[in-house]
Amino acid sequence: MSVRDHCGIVGIFNHPEAARLTYFGLHALQHRGQESAGIVTATYDEARDRRVMPTHRDFGLVLDVFSDHDLFRSKLLGEAAIGHTRYSTSGATDNPANIQPFVVHYQEGNLALAHNGNLSNGRSIREDLVAKGTLFNSSSDSELILHLVAQSREQGAIPRIIDALHQCRGAFSLVMLTDDALIAVRDSNGFRPLALGRLEREDGGVAYCVASETCAFDIIGATYVRDVAPGEILVIDREGLDRVERAGDRTAEGFHGVCLPRDHGVNQCVFEYVYFSRPDSKIFGAMVDKVRRKIGKALAHDAPPPVPDEGEKRPIVIAVPDSSNTATLGYVTECRKLGHDVRYEIGLIRNHYVGRTFISPGQDAREMKVRTKFNPVEGLLKDRIVVMVDDSIVRGTTAKQLVKMVRAAGAKEVHFRSAAPPVISPCFYGMDFPTETELLANQYDRDVEKMGAWLGVNSLAYVSVDGMMAAVREASGSDGFCNACFTSNYPVPVERGVEKEENEW
Amino acid sequence: MSVRDHCGIVGIFNHPEAARLTYFGLHALQHRGQESAGIVTATYDEARDRRVMPTHRDFGLVLDVFSDHDLFRSKLLGEAAIGHTRYSTSGATDNPANIQPFVVHYQEGNLALAHNGNLSNGRSIREDLVAKGTLFNSSSDSELILHLVAQSREQGAIPRIIDALHQCRGAFSLVMLTDDALIAVRDSNGFRPLALGRLEREDGGVAYCVASETCAFDIIGATYVRDVAPGEILVIDREGLDRVERAGDRTAEGFHGVCLPRDHGVNQCVFEYVYFSRPDSKIFGAMVDKVRRKIGKALAHDAPPPVPDEGEKRPIVIAVPDSSNTATLGYVTECRKLGHDVRYEIGLIRNHYVGRTFISPGQDAREMKVRTKFNPVEGLLKDRIVVMVDDSIVRGTTAKQLVKMVRAAGAKEVHFRSAAPPVISPCFYGMDFPTETELLANQYDRDVEKMGAWLGVNSLAYVSVDGMMAAVREASGSDGFCNACFTSNYPVPVERGVEKEENEW
Amino acid sequence: MSVRDHCGIVGIFNHPEAARLTYFGLHALQHRGQESAGIVTATYDEARDRRVMPTHRDFGLVLDVFSDHDLFRSKLLGEAAIGHTRYSTSGATDNPANIQPFVVHYQEGNLALAHNGNLSNGRSIREDLVAKGTLFNSSSDSELILHLVAQSREQGAIPRIIDALHQCRGAFSLVMLTDDALIAVRDSNGFRPLALGRLEREDGGVAYCVASETCAFDIIGATYVRDVAPGEILVIDREGLDRVERAGDRTAEGFHGVCLPRDHGVNQCVFEYVYFSRPDSKIFGAMVDKVRRKIGKALAHDAPPPVPDEGEKRPIVIAVPDSSNTATLGYVTECRKLGHDVRYEIGLIRNHYVGRTFISPGQDAREMKVRTKFNPVEGLLKDRIVVMVDDSIVRGTTAKQLVKMVRAAGAKEVHFRSAAPPVISPCFYGMDFPTETELLANQYDRDVEKMGAWLGVNSLAYVSVDGMMAAVREASGSDGFCNACFTSNYPVPVERGVEKEENEW
Amino acid sequence: MSVRDHCGIVGIFNHPEAARLTYFGLHALQHRGQESAGIVTATYDEARDRRVMPTHRDFGLVLDVFSDHDLFRSKLLGEAAIGHTRYSTSGATDNPANIQPFVVHYQEGNLALAHNGNLSNGRSIREDLVAKGTLFNSSSDSELILHLVAQSREQGAIPRIIDALHQCRGAFSLVMLTDDALIAVRDSNGFRPLALGRLEREDGGVAYCVASETCAFDIIGATYVRDVAPGEILVIDREGLDRVERAGDRTAEGFHGVCLPRDHGVNQCVFEYVYFSRPDSKIFGAMVDKVRRKIGKALAHDAPPPVPDEGEKRPIVIAVPDSSNTATLGYVTECRKLGHDVRYEIGLIRNHYVGRTFISPGQDAREMKVRTKFNPVEGLLKDRIVVMVDDSIVRGTTAKQLVKMVRAAGAKEVHFRSAAPPVISPCFYGMDFPTETELLANQYDRDVEKMGAWLGVNSLAYVSVDGMMAAVREASGSDGFCNACFTSNYPVPVERGVEKEENEW
Repeated sequence: MSVRDHCGIVGIFNHPEAARLTYFGLHALQHRGQESAGIVTATYDEARDRRVMPTHRDFGLVLDVFSDHDLFRSKLLGEAAIGHTRYSTSGATDNPANIQPFVVHYQEGNLALAHNGNLSNGRSIREDLVAKGTLFNSSSDSELILHLVAQSREQGAIPRIIDALHQCRGAFSLVMLTDDALIAVRDSNGFRPLALGRLEREDGGVAYCVASETCAFDIIGATYVRDVAPGEILVIDREGLDRVERAGDRTAEGFHGVCLPRDHGVNQCVFEYVYFSRPDSKIFGAMVDKVRRKIGKALAHDAPPPVPDEGEKRPIVIAVPDSSNTATLGYVTECRKLGHDVRYEIGLIRNHYVGRTFISPGQDAREMKVRTKFNPVEGLLKDRIVVMVDDSIVRGTTAKQLVKMVRAAGAKEVHFRSAAPPVISPCFYGMDFPTETELLANQYDRDVEKMGAWLGVNSLAYVSVDGMMAAVREASGSDGFCNACFTSNYPVPVERGVEKEENEW
Repeated sequence: MSVRDHCGIVGIFNHPEAARLTYFGLHALQHRGQESAGIVTATYDEARDRRVMPTHRDFGLVLDVFSDHDLFRSKLLGEAAIGHTRYSTSGATDNPANIQPFVVHYQEGNLALAHNGNLSNGRSIREDLVAKGTLFNSSSDSELILHLVAQSREQGAIPRIIDALHQCRGAFSLVMLTDDALIAVRDSNGFRPLALGRLEREDGGVAYCVASETCAFDIIGATYVRDVAPGEILVIDREGLDRVERAGDRTAEGFHGVCLPRDHGVNQCVFEYVYFSRPDSKIFGAMVDKVRRKIGKALAHDAPPPVPDEGEKRPIVIAVPDSSNTATLGYVTECRKLGHDVRYEIGLIRNHYVGRTFISPGQDAREMKVRTKFNPVEGLLKDRIVVMVDDSIVRGTTAKQLVKMVRAAGAKEVHFRSAAPPVISPCFYGMDFPTETELLANQYDRDVEKMGAWLGVNSLAYVSVDGMMAAVREASGSDGFCNACFTSNYPVPVERGVEKEENEW
Repeated sequence: MSVRDHCGIVGIFNHPEAARLTYFGLHALQHRGQESAGIVTATYDEARDRRVMPTHRDFGLVLDVFSDHDLFRSKLLGEAAIGHTRYSTSGATDNPANIQPFVVHYQEGNLALAHNGNLSNGRSIREDLVAKGTLFNSSSDSELILHLVAQSREQGAIPRIIDALHQCRGAFSLVMLTDDALIAVRDSNGFRPLALGRLEREDGGVAYCVASETCAFDIIGATYVRDVAPGEILVIDREGLDRVERAGDRTAEGFHGVCLPRDHGVNQCVFEYVYFSRPDSKIFGAMVDKVRRKIGKALAHDAPPPVPDEGEKRPIVIAVPDSSNTATLGYVTECRKLGHDVRYEIGLIRNHYVGRTFISPGQDAREMKVRTKFNPVEGLLKDRIVVMVDDSIVRGTTAKQLVKMVRAAGAKEVHFRSAAPPVISPCFYGMDFPTETELLANQYDRDVEKMGAWLGVNSLAYVSVDGMMAAVREASGSDGFCNACFTSNYPVPVERGVEKEENEW
Repeated sequence: MSVRDHCGIVGIFNHPEAARLTYFGLHALQHRGQESAGIVTATYDEARDRRVMPTHRDFGLVLDVFSDHDLFRSKLLGEAAIGHTRYSTSGATDNPANIQPFVVHYQEGNLALAHNGNLSNGRSIREDLVAKGTLFNSSSDSELILHLVAQSREQGAIPRIIDALHQCRGAFSLVMLTDDALIAVRDSNGFRPLALGRLEREDGGVAYCVASETCAFDIIGATYVRDVAPGEILVIDREGLDRVERAGDRTAEGFHGVCLPRDHGVNQCVFEYVYFSRPDSKIFGAMVDKVRRKIGKALAHDAPPPVPDEGEKRPIVIAVPDSSNTATLGYVTECRKLGHDVRYEIGLIRNHYVGRTFISPGQDAREMKVRTKFNPVEGLLKDRIVVMVDDSIVRGTTAKQLVKMVRAAGAKEVHFRSAAPPVISPCFYGMDFPTETELLANQYDRDVEKMGAWLGVNSLAYVSVDGMMAAVREASGSDGFCNACFTSNYPVPVERGVEKEENEW
């Protein structure tokens, strides 16, 4: 599918190799944004006798931005760090000033911020700030938060941050770094995930970390403690660590927190389960892999495979790799339980050497891009009834190419199954969707038959919203989800203008 | 496993977009070499009134080397082209002069060459040439062939090439470009694959192509005709095309060929099936995917899963992605047919953003490299008996890390199954293996129990040589294979020195 | 000498090729700063229906920063532009956020600024702003001015700019760009030069331009109109152009201006004449070349050449190229008029391929740097009495190396003459001088004999402050000069802290 | 003038910092070629137990190619080195294989070569080699020499080199490196300069060096010993050093040499004096500065300044910096001696930040290039009779622009004087001249009046061939010079084809 990832954020506190661990955490979150990467640390500069925040950030993959490993030895020093990988949802993409984390110096000292999300009242905050004579360096929502902190009438970094965040609406999972503390925040809806982890240091000490997804904990050997709660402003500092240590119980939690008011209930993004997050991550209280498997099972009920004619070979079920692999496994298992004689096969091979940024030369660029990424396994598909499962259908352009390729490989019939309901509405809470009219479902008035005809399939079927939500609720044990992209039920009102404006100047 | 890919070669004849198609073909063969890439075309330069061979090649992935798409419009002109992606098996890796295709100018005009393989008599050829006053520009075997052509006493490009190739022993699949023809060659053993394809042009004409693997045909919409035969020197030129056209049957073959003597029979590399080639390619007469599935089935017989105690949950079988996915599917299917109650699961997630060249900063670089590439799916593995299937075990270092990670994710038992027999001998025919003593099997005198202990598994088992060869023979319908890396039966004698010398100066 | 250049600024209004002309102007001012370069234009973006300021800036020479000429055709559009070349006098040098021109968006629209100088009350302005919750993106003085504009209580861009500049003290020559106007400013002391020029367009229209030095006018074919006056805020806009046109006299001046109060009189930097500016520029009302020649003549009176013994060949006078060439010519002419039999010779050859940033490998880096830059002409110097003339002596380290080289080339005696008095005090008005203790004169308590001994010369002599000032006054017809670096008479008080602090964070 | 430099070569033997000294030598010779630079050293690789020749070379200035100073510590090891800076006179300029020094491995071991010149029988040598089956890697003449060495029937590196050089005709100054020796060669005509120097090492040992110009000796503190003689093949090796040491006299020469037959007498390039070489170099037995001064004096006789009308101010004489500075000084001195009341002034300022490769954006590129490089000093030229002296006139295009600029600066009259006779014939011995028809003198049938009219001057005059040659002979004490570019008297016949062919393929 063609939704592009948004952002991944990481923070580490109280570890001598904070930057290097952040680097590995960013690698684990690379799928959440391939446009730029950055790390900021907090340390004390003896030569200049003050607290400083060394920073390194650039356009590119984590691997390329930090290819000079000397950075970790000589520059990104300090025991606290935050990092960011980004695909921006607002803000001009070619402006280096938009690369996060942001770092500023203000009355209370240094402050760094990494943001995943999208403020729904960003426009009015910006207008207020401009009217007060504020200059902007980026077109990003995230800079607004920094100005609110600096202009707050509260005293002290933490009270200012709390004050500032009370003014923000919409989707924001944040890690912030002050000279003394790491602060982790989730908006009161909990749109975007953010988890707290703990890492035993070799010297016996304990470090704390936060990350968008728990796969970032695995890579550095940290253990998952809990999610940062929707609306929580969690302050991880030396004082809190001392309380943990005094308690003599490392699993005790000594950190102060503040809670933002929950105006609209909890509304966690169901699309994180459907596509964004890695299957090996735990978010919103459940392993993504497990949720996807359950959605796959629901799909088997809502959209069973075709029944072959007598004498016909059994249908084969193939996933569009890699994002729909797990849902497909769940689908096949449940289909068989329901009595369908189908078999799981690997029918599309993905070429991982070409990434998101690949542009194909020549006229037929779009088609060649898909062909460069995917290739059918010919012997397997020839003369077979093929059921293709994808995690979702957004524009449908890639799906259409894949169907064409599978047919060209000799498939007798192609049946398409989507492990998410039709996408019908854009997201204003941090995902970069096409505009409403570009969505396949809207181009054909949500008429599945017409959509299938355009895709060139023998049949097209989706999991139902109810089926998907039941699976999500069951796997996560929670009921607080946003599914606006499938239902148009937007939990938080969005300012006019946020929908369309790129705040670039 | 830790065998590094070697080389991929492509050639196109009689197509106005020869270079662009070659570019896509190289993308499909990127898994065969990520160190450098290059394309050479043959065209006529009106301004200078002569035949020329525009060339572009550099270190890096295909995507990066050809990031300037103007190349295809303004430089790499002409209706014939050859391309190469490389991981060198001999020759210094940081010398730009070693990047293929090579292009030279000699008595008969221009000549370009792209080579996959390793001459077993390269040393004596080099010594002879040096004694005659020949200068070398690279340390590559491939340059030797060019000198033999230039110094041949035959007249005409084709007779010289034939003469030169009669002097070469060992592994060589080649595509060569003269001012008038594309020449495709496989050594008489047929060690490395090379296939012939046909491409219908939009204007009604027909183009021919050759490639290491047929996945390169799929990406450009070409159809597989047949393999270049072991020992065949196939000349694809205008004259041959005319014969095809006159025959009025496009499937007719009009090309001249010459056959090199088959001194040692046919010895196709079984490791191409085990690991090198893509599952969606057809090589040596069979789809790789199909062969791997059959080997997986043989593995079920030779190395069944453990039988759980009463009341224990059924074991889960996971693949080390992506190279062992198909074999694992075959293994699970056959296990169930044999009465073992096991289930296929996706238990390791692979991060595709870090490639072969990733180097991790810090002391624990090796471990962190594996952790950055793979992550276990925790909920799935916890308290389960896990059977891990890999395509093969070479040094065993990655396998050991993976086992440690799967255990840390909570697996109760870890059983390792290799879909290839123990690797016991290095390859002198084009694969870059560790030295004999570095191979895991040799470090423990081929004692499987000790090897398993070092890997930290509850059990370790391999497919047998007989089991694997039976599967390969059945799937391919052929009997001519080299399995020296598993058996030490080297079909072609190797000169002393080839084993150890890096010909760098 | 080792004073590093500071900044060059240019602005163009009402020319369809504004950016390209700015580019050439920056080339002419390259000597004023080689660290970074940038251009901003003002134009209307039809697609987005608003005024925008396209910007390109980077570290490096003008040639390298603008090596992609497409910039001028596709990005830097508009009929008004400003440019900047920089060696920063405060602000961290490796922070890209410090590269000028700065561009911001605020209540009144877009605003860009290029600054040459140093605010003497920068510290207290910054403290005030920080207390108001202002965030800083750079450590540069210049950003302060932008915040003052944005936070001004006046209405409209021009009134706000006037308000902001009334709060600034110290040295600032500025070009600013609003969506409608080009604004040129000199502080009331007139420390740094800034001139107004006029350019006849091919289509009959007239463009106006401003630049640090008039050599920037020559390169684009503009003619010098007059200096921007000390304290003048000159607004060049469409309205003013219309007045010019209505007047029917192109030499009429139609532009509005405002004058800042002259608290400390006029204090133009005498060091601009001594070293900074190009000899082919007119600044502060006089050609630099002419002033230098007159200083050279004064030097002949204050520091005549040695009188050779009977029978000795006449002394030869050589310049340290290229900055002291003109003063040396004046010196020789006047010496001869005074009866000294000396001859002007080219005795040192300068290698222009190594620039300011050249760092020599190895232990003896400093010596090798000088040897790479300068080489004596051996045949010429051998056995001769040599008088070396340099524009000034700051640390003396380069002078010492040169003396050593000239002696090694066979000179019998080396007499050093400085066309500026001893430098004894740092500059706080925009020049980057060594600290007070590093200055040669201060290391030897201004004892010229000891200084000469350290340099290794037979005699050392300087032009007197009176001699230099008389020459400057005569040539320029003006009396308002700052010579604090030679006299410690600072015309404007400097805040504690400005002297030492690098405002980096 | 618009002749582009060709090549500079350096070699060092018996110094522990051979590569670093070569690096500085190349800096001094940067004016002889700015297209590429390279260094090769000879050393023993313990790990591989053999002699090796580490190499670093790339396109760009010496400064940029060797910006990584680690090269000198970790790669370019050994006590012998050669280096090359290049502007090629034949060979494709964008082919990296053409960057010198060349290094090859052949029967006798390693061999490196750096070449300044142009073989006049290069075409027939190449044809012979091609017929023998030789492959070419570059289109450079220099590679021919390497093949001749490798294919020689002699035994031993030195005899092979001698044999090879006997087959070469035309211009070649060479430094070569074998595993044991540094070899310096000048063709028998001595077209290009090459000098031998001696360097006292800090540890008491003695190193020897060779270089195109002696300014390369000055930078490293070496002393000039003598020129390599025309036709000399000088072998600098350990054996020779031992002889020097045994002699107990460091100025003794212990090196073996061989002399090539002098078929055409000695023909040293007079243009090296006129323009190519640096004034601080000694070549062909004389300081360049001294020769130029003498030519300037001859110019005063052949082409005196105009006599001003009564009451008119005296004419001022300005040089086109920097190449004609010395000749202009000589001209002014002699003019005054001859009774002309003229004065030397600095009337054109050169901007050294833009180098040879500067390309100006826009339509008026050529004019803007000149304006970016040169600017007149306005106050000085206004209303004056100006005599401009340039070292030579080739196409005349730059001269024409300069005249226009000087006029625009207010000069009343402009008189142009060339310190070389009219250039009428191309060079086939190593200089890159325009074609015959592009030369200004040939466009107007050598009619000086018409040439002056085209240039836009009040008068144009040249030094005569006789005047120039007398000056050269007197200053150098030699009579063996080639002045074919001024006289068409080619001392060595040139093969058809060498004139026009670019040997690119």
